[in-house]
Amino acid sequence: MPSDIAIAQQAQLNKVSQIAQALGLNEASVEPYGHYKAKIEPALNPQLQARADGRLILVTAISPTPAGEGKTTTTVGLGDALNHIGKRAMVCLREPALGPVFGMKGGAAGGGYAQVVPMEDINLHFTGDFAAVALAHNLLSAMIDNHIHHGNALGIDPRQVSWKRVMDMNDRALRQIVVGLGGKVNGQAREDGFDIVVASEVMAILCLCDDLADLKQRLGHIVIGYGFAGQAITASALQAHGAMAVLLKNAIKPNLVQTLEHTPALIHGGPFANIAHGCNSVIATRLALKLADYVVTEAGFGADLGAEKFIDIKCRKSGLRPAAAVIVATVRALKYHGGVDLTALAQLNLPALLAGIANLQRHVHNLQQTFGLPCVVAINRFTQDTDAELALLAEQMAALGVRVVLAEHWAKGGAGAAALAEEVVRLTEAAPTPLRFAYEDADTLWEKMHKLATRIYGAADIFAARRIREQIDKLQQDGYGHYPVCVAKTQYSFSTDAALRGAPSGHRVTIREVRLCAGAEFIVMVCDDIMTMPGLPKVPCATRIDIDAAGHVVGLF
Amino acid sequence: MPSDIAIAQQAQLNKVSQIAQALGLNEASVEPYGHYKAKIEPALNPQLQARADGRLILVTAISPTPAGEGKTTTTVGLGDALNHIGKRAMVCLREPALGPVFGMKGGAAGGGYAQVVPMEDINLHFTGDFAAVALAHNLLSAMIDNHIHHGNALGIDPRQVSWKRVMDMNDRALRQIVVGLGGKVNGQAREDGFDIVVASEVMAILCLCDDLADLKQRLGHIVIGYGFAGQAITASALQAHGAMAVLLKNAIKPNLVQTLEHTPALIHGGPFANIAHGCNSVIATRLALKLADYVVTEAGFGADLGAEKFIDIKCRKSGLRPAAAVIVATVRALKYHGGVDLTALAQLNLPALLAGIANLQRHVHNLQQTFGLPCVVAINRFTQDTDAELALLAEQMAALGVRVVLAEHWAKGGAGAAALAEEVVRLTEAAPTPLRFAYEDADTLWEKMHKLATRIYGAADIFAARRIREQIDKLQQDGYGHYPVCVAKTQYSFSTDAALRGAPSGHRVTIREVRLCAGAEFIVMVCDDIMTMPGLPKVPCATRIDIDAAGHVVGLF
Repeated sequence: MPSDIAIAQQAQLNKVSQIAQALGLNEASVEPYGHYKAKIEPALNPQLQARADGRLILVTAISPTPAGEGKTTTTVGLGDALNHIGKRAMVCLREPALGPVFGMKGGAAGGGYAQVVPMEDINLHFTGDFAAVALAHNLLSAMIDNHIHHGNALGIDPRQVSWKRVMDMNDRALRQIVVGLGGKVNGQAREDGFDIVVASEVMAILCLCDDLADLKQRLGHIVIGYGFAGQAITASALQAHGAMAVLLKNAIKPNLVQTLEHTPALIHGGPFANIAHGCNSVIATRLALKLADYVVTEAGFGADLGAEKFIDIKCRKSGLRPAAAVIVATVRALKYHGGVDLTALAQLNLPALLAGIANLQRHVHNLQQTFGLPCVVAINRFTQDTDAELALLAEQMAALGVRVVLAEHWAKGGAGAAALAEEVVRLTEAAPTPLRFAYEDADTLWEKMHKLATRIYGAADIFAARRIREQIDKLQQDGYGHYPVCVAKTQYSFSTDAALRGAPSGHRVTIREVRLCAGAEFIVMVCDDIMTMPGLPKVPCATRIDIDAAGHVVGLF
Repeated sequence: MPSDIAIAQQAQLNKVSQIAQALGLNEASVEPYGHYKAKIEPALNPQLQARADGRLILVTAISPTPAGEGKTTTTVGLGDALNHIGKRAMVCLREPALGPVFGMKGGAAGGGYAQVVPMEDINLHFTGDFAAVALAHNLLSAMIDNHIHHGNALGIDPRQVSWKRVMDMNDRALRQIVVGLGGKVNGQAREDGFDIVVASEVMAILCLCDDLADLKQRLGHIVIGYGFAGQAITASALQAHGAMAVLLKNAIKPNLVQTLEHTPALIHGGPFANIAHGCNSVIATRLALKLADYVVTEAGFGADLGAEKFIDIKCRKSGLRPAAAVIVATVRALKYHGGVDLTALAQLNLPALLAGIANLQRHVHNLQQTFGLPCVVAINRFTQDTDAELALLAEQMAALGVRVVLAEHWAKGGAGAAALAEEVVRLTEAAPTPLRFAYEDADTLWEKMHKLATRIYGAADIFAARRIREQIDKLQQDGYGHYPVCVAKTQYSFSTDAALRGAPSGHRVTIREVRLCAGAEFIVMVCDDIMTMPGLPKVPCATRIDIDAAGHVVGLF
């Protein structure tokens, strides 16, 4: 197989104007960014707006492993496959963060023959949305320090400013810094730090808001820290939210591109899946549902984090309702969950596979029983996978009433996932069951976290030190109790211990930290170390990424 | 008069595809960014490439004053006026920095009826060039600290890293910081700081390079600091320049927009006029000269800094040759140079005007005698200007063989600057005189600085402390002696004392600091405090910039 970038560069793309026209979009609502990217005005004409919504398909996965599962690739491949079998489908994805492209990752736009293109642009600046989020975030940061410097009329306590700065770069040296050194002319010295842009609350707000008015209002609600009198200080008190919204006026519009097979793709927003909810924007998903009969989307990490937040945060708040879910797994990854070393994954090992299937079973149970979502298991096939392993997997899933479908879109494009598409269509044509949530709005914040831990993670109980309990109680008393909780924990395990593979149970989930996101309208419960500014590896991808005099790029995977 | 933004928002723009087509550009070389902006592929087809170059007109100014002169407005107005009198003209401008838009400035795309549009976009993210420069710069920064963290094979001395980080924000708290706090996992603690993006050497390189290959090579030559053994550490030693060039692959293409009167405008690059050379990109200027018969461009600050660097750095290195210069002044600003207080500038004061004209006379002398450039003085007319004042000014300039033309493009658009356009055409139709430089390549760095100070600034001598002299000698010995010097000094005076208005002479210019820019290929001589990260005022413009639910922006001037 050629490399991802070689496949992407050889692709014959359709003009984005052609893609947009086929969707029924008129010229006025399409702003081209080059010939193969466009921003779409989300306010549709009355004719499109009156259309019935298409069916929303969520692609999620087992708990991630170093063996790789291929969730984005499956999302793209399923979109292509639905068109291949004669449906009108499109895909909705998050925009990749730039920092990791130069670190370990080298690109994040699918792979093989299931990619979104132009992949270099999507992996680099794309249409500037992340730059806009960074500037809006950092404008607020600058206005905070500027306010303190010029008399501090609001009485902001420099020791209690929680709003950091952001950059779309993997840069560990910026995690913990001291700013304002050099004397009076440079302002008040204080501790600060940088997060990567996808960790910005502005990104979460952009992805959850309904429209520009809602965006601005939510930006105004951001709590940047506390004053000397203990009062919450908001972005609106600093009069920053209007200018922040101005900086985001283009970023709020979804970006239209295409897959290698010309399936339309909206790629919009990219909130971190740990301290945020890890899904593309509500605006893009709503738009796609008006433009296509099937919309395939994905959520970050495994189903315990990604699908849960997709449903309990994004769907709850927006009214979006998925018709079915696809759980992506590989035989190799399931053997890893069964305790096999990375080096031995290619070997037949039925007992380990059976043990590892427990991870998949719990995710299936959560989607089916807790959330009421019909689902299918998609296996990204590797050549070493044996018939015996696949038969065991099918048998185990059959017991739950779930089919296992082999998918080969990576090597074969949409045609390779036709069987998956057929099963997805079948699932969505059954009588719909109402979506359920893991907790109710009226539950207390503590109850919400308790329900997630016990129902979704298989834990016995939750725990928090007195100081954290008090913070949670204060948020409850301050009127934030109706917010959803957004859990930040390791994605590698149902538990909070990354080394516990499979389906651990009886464990205790400890809440280490609580963060109020009053603009995004959720409460982050941190149950693990979370990394909000990654670092670069010893030999970063950046050292291999290059361009020749003709503009030909190499080194993006 | 309506506000600038109100005028801009009421304008009927032509589609950028229409503007490009009228220039003879085929569709393949035009990448639309929305309907009114486009990136232009600078490699033209052979037919356009074979065209004779148009005539290049430099717009410069007297030493800036708080009264304002209107250089960008005149550049735009002259372009419109040349088209108005039947010529084929376009304008070449720098892209505005975003930071100052939220500080004091509120916008920088001309004013009144002489603006480039869409002004909101030009003032905000535009086509993402500055974001790309910031990311390329900060990628190198991250790779430096990452290299030190992972064993420091190159032996970089953390105390001698001069490559800072950048952000397009006015943020004084970031001027002087400590990074890498928090222990081993966050890397090596060291002093650092942020500059505003326009101060990045990457920006200077982007604006001086010939093409992508030259860009990458220059990026590789950047010296980020010194090693423990005293050796210079380059970006190429860190293998960062390839990935940096990838990040700049779109930013290297000039941006096409239009004036309110549909004159084509290339707006590309924006190096700071203090630590860099303050002109738009060489690539954009060369492209414009192939597309139009008259190209009007401008250089930052007054003619002692802007025009000098335009000629001694940009023209020397690129082979570009201006055919004439326009020196922008106002009667009010000349009275200010004659010693009048800001509050009294509206009053008739012929002696003060005569005294202030000395500033203009020296700029005229420098352009005519030192550089060999024919010139005209453009007076942006205010209603309080009297006939007596204008007559005195005309009489003084006539003695130098220079005409004074009143320009009213701010209120009347191109028609208001028709007389200026006629005079510019007349100047460029005279037999061309060869352009001269203020110093020769072969002069030593010290001689270059001495010639600038004595010939251009009217100084008696230059001075540097022993340590600075030694640094200059070392740069000379290290093989950088053939580079031009790029002076950073106050723009408000010919001297290094901002309070010395008019045309001071006999003063001494003290070099306080020397900086090597091995990628941009010049040596910065700092003769004053220079600000490479501005701050916000007590009530920033950002507090007044706002957007309504329909996307209508207010508060940009």
